[in-house]
Amino acid sequence: MDTRTTYIDRLTELGKLNSAVALLTWDEETHMPKRGLALRAETIGKLSRMAFELSTSDEFGRCIEELEGRDDLSEAEAASVRVMGKEYRRNKAVPPDLFEAFTIAQSKSQAAWAEAKRASDFERFRPHLEEIVGYVRQFAELFGYEECPYDALLDRYEPGMTSVRLRAILEPLRDRLVPFVDRLLAEGTPPDGPALHGHFPIDAQRAMARTVLERIGYDFDAGTLDDTMHPFTTRIAPGDVRVTNRYLESNPLSGLFGALHEGGHALYDQGMKDDLYVLQLADGASYGFHESQSRLIENQIGRSRPFWTFFRPILVGAFPALDRISAEALYGAANRVSRSPIRVEADEVTYNLHIMLRFELESKLLNENLPVGELPGLWCDAMECTVGVRPASDADGVLQDIHWSGGMIGYFPSYMLGNLYAAQIAQALREEIPTLDGQIAEGDFAPLLAWLRERIHRFGAIYEPSELIERVTGGPLSAEPFLVYVEKKYSEIYDLWPDRS
Amino acid sequence: MDTRTTYIDRLTELGKLNSAVALLTWDEETHMPKRGLALRAETIGKLSRMAFELSTSDEFGRCIEELEGRDDLSEAEAASVRVMGKEYRRNKAVPPDLFEAFTIAQSKSQAAWAEAKRASDFERFRPHLEEIVGYVRQFAELFGYEECPYDALLDRYEPGMTSVRLRAILEPLRDRLVPFVDRLLAEGTPPDGPALHGHFPIDAQRAMARTVLERIGYDFDAGTLDDTMHPFTTRIAPGDVRVTNRYLESNPLSGLFGALHEGGHALYDQGMKDDLYVLQLADGASYGFHESQSRLIENQIGRSRPFWTFFRPILVGAFPALDRISAEALYGAANRVSRSPIRVEADEVTYNLHIMLRFELESKLLNENLPVGELPGLWCDAMECTVGVRPASDADGVLQDIHWSGGMIGYFPSYMLGNLYAAQIAQALREEIPTLDGQIAEGDFAPLLAWLRERIHRFGAIYEPSELIERVTGGPLSAEPFLVYVEKKYSEIYDLWPDRS
Repeated sequence: MDTRTTYIDRLTELGKLNSAVALLTWDEETHMPKRGLALRAETIGKLSRMAFELSTSDEFGRCIEELEGRDDLSEAEAASVRVMGKEYRRNKAVPPDLFEAFTIAQSKSQAAWAEAKRASDFERFRPHLEEIVGYVRQFAELFGYEECPYDALLDRYEPGMTSVRLRAILEPLRDRLVPFVDRLLAEGTPPDGPALHGHFPIDAQRAMARTVLERIGYDFDAGTLDDTMHPFTTRIAPGDVRVTNRYLESNPLSGLFGALHEGGHALYDQGMKDDLYVLQLADGASYGFHESQSRLIENQIGRSRPFWTFFRPILVGAFPALDRISAEALYGAANRVSRSPIRVEADEVTYNLHIMLRFELESKLLNENLPVGELPGLWCDAMECTVGVRPASDADGVLQDIHWSGGMIGYFPSYMLGNLYAAQIAQALREEIPTLDGQIAEGDFAPLLAWLRERIHRFGAIYEPSELIERVTGGPLSAEPFLVYVEKKYSEIYDLWPDRS
Repeated sequence: MDTRTTYIDRLTELGKLNSAVALLTWDEETHMPKRGLALRAETIGKLSRMAFELSTSDEFGRCIEELEGRDDLSEAEAASVRVMGKEYRRNKAVPPDLFEAFTIAQSKSQAAWAEAKRASDFERFRPHLEEIVGYVRQFAELFGYEECPYDALLDRYEPGMTSVRLRAILEPLRDRLVPFVDRLLAEGTPPDGPALHGHFPIDAQRAMARTVLERIGYDFDAGTLDDTMHPFTTRIAPGDVRVTNRYLESNPLSGLFGALHEGGHALYDQGMKDDLYVLQLADGASYGFHESQSRLIENQIGRSRPFWTFFRPILVGAFPALDRISAEALYGAANRVSRSPIRVEADEVTYNLHIMLRFELESKLLNENLPVGELPGLWCDAMECTVGVRPASDADGVLQDIHWSGGMIGYFPSYMLGNLYAAQIAQALREEIPTLDGQIAEGDFAPLLAWLRERIHRFGAIYEPSELIERVTGGPLSAEPFLVYVEKKYSEIYDLWPDRS
């Protein structure tokens, strides 16, 4: 059989196994009764292992090698071979015994993290994290890198990104953002407008989330909306991209921005053509790029003034008691800035500061062999320096995120890159569609979606993120559009005088 | 590795694949968005094929053969080897090419059936059914039988059952039931009580179904309740047995009896201990026995007078407009008898007559090479003879059920066996728990469930149905308890004099 055909056949098989795993995982977080858990982990493990074996088989490796040497592949096929080849070599680099030992450590470490967080006691977690970091350091060596070990991890989530490139973006960002937050909170006037606290029945919030997803263009013929504890979006298959969300009875903004954020991810996934799925190119250009699509819908659109002009009647329709609140006041309520020690509660101005801190600590762990025991202290100091608040406990500090407990080191920068890509894309978008704000105010999201589809979504992972951002915005990734965006927007909301310096 | 260990390992693997297939299938009928269908069939096909390959592998066959010769197995292990050995030999008997040709014909035939039913035109379906019956005749020869080809099919659904045994039960049943229905409808007085037609919001019906499932002892920590078009119950895993149901806005009894029926299946599944799952013994003693558990809850309990004493306040709580209707009138409304040409609309008195007709026709197709073209005419005649009504069209006659289109010949008797087992079990139950009616009237289902768990559920498929019914009731399967039950119950409801003959 022709190598190209064999390659596609194997990818098709892989797609089916991945589809089953995605459904089993989605169900575990949405519908599964609690006593179903015991077998679920084993079932997911079994099918994941089968997918792993398939994608690391010698036959598959030979296909990749042969196809890498061919020049008659389509652009998408060549991209597929590039992406799968990278993953194949990374997977083959780790001896199976080492990987198995890691997965066992991982599951123990995650349980220990949950317990340590509950007790707010880093010491209970420390030995586990030391073990995990030990494995991750080994993986970095096995994966290989050019400049520093951390780059081997970064590249898994943001292909082509390096510490040097990241630092070149991040440092000037920090140098301008930290003083801006200082001025904003010291000299600015927080927006008027009530805190939206009260009793907002979940059913009505869920219906509202459904409405807003429909309005932004999410296709319910190719998706669902379900409740979960930790919202996520998942692709079960082409034509089946599912959003999950969570609602707080006391505050309708939480569920609304959750829906917009996940909706952004889902629009990206629904916008990739079906043939990308077979080629394993339908996960987007990178984790950072995927995050850019959720941040764009959540923040650049959902936290904009015209959005609240459009959205206020829907909100008031669901909760008539809010009739007394103006669109402008709602816009203010959706855009408050504060120094929170908790990343997931951060507003769009301070969010990136939380990421910088994590990136610095991760870099030190990988590149400078920082002892794990020093993390809590460094965390508190850095948090005070950048965000301007000292966490009161380990639970609100170094233990707040699950990522490290599972060895997910190198992922955090994706969140920041998402914010930066989103601002840069939104700038290009507003230049190319000058009437965008008017359309949003009228609830017409079709031109926005058509632009995203045409310029970003349909390419999936065909281009690496550095190439894609150039194609979309005409320039390389930069923090400048983000800085201009937050400085302008929040100076106005906080009634801040232009910088006197 | 020890053969027993290898055998259990393979069964464990099989259990995981089956679990994934069960979830993919459940999701397809409940939550999947419509555009997800394309890949879903392929994904289910792929995993089912993997399960089939595993359970027909030479290694697995060798395990079975060796274990069949051993005398150190536990009772459950020996039963597992018996069940899996039977399935292994049946699967191996059919050459893969023949099976593949059959599955292609099957899928075309099902589509043709749906179209023919819509058009009420048997001729459109005839060539497909001829092809399917041809395959099924071949399968019967390949599976093997002692007395007649039909027995090879019957045994798949009701292990150990034969046409001769079935006929010995069925003929006396028909001889007493047909004249009883005649008398009932000619001389009896239909129960008073209103038809429960009106507007009954689905949300309230769904909540009511949930309540009734909880009350009968269905464990929501190990299950879910979801909407679907064609209600079914499925086991995803031990600790994960899911009920699906359907509601008609115009009539709350449809959704209620659907929930009770599926709840009966679900109690059986939830009552099998987890270790039976690994041994592939957790599907129950047979399809007929599974149906007995649903019929017992739906009819013997749910259509009993004390159930309506208990249930009326719940119904009135959900639909206050029904407050004017007494428990006795509701009992009457739940127990009307009529001559319907449609099996799924049949009441508990006439239901078995629908099955007898199908059994006779299936027997003729298999044992006497009845030409498929003669089915519509024979169907109408037999329907007139047994149920006493002539279908007005093919759609309401020979085309009404999906079963034959997929080659599911030999399954229909399970429905009747379910009714007979249920009556026989209920008779034993009422003898052993004389206070049962009082408990039901008070909504105390715990003694009932405990009895079913102890006497039936926990054994799964360890015993063949003929042995299990003996163990539970002290005697072999008989139609007598069913006849005594319907004659007594409906003579009273229809105010019929004792038989004067």
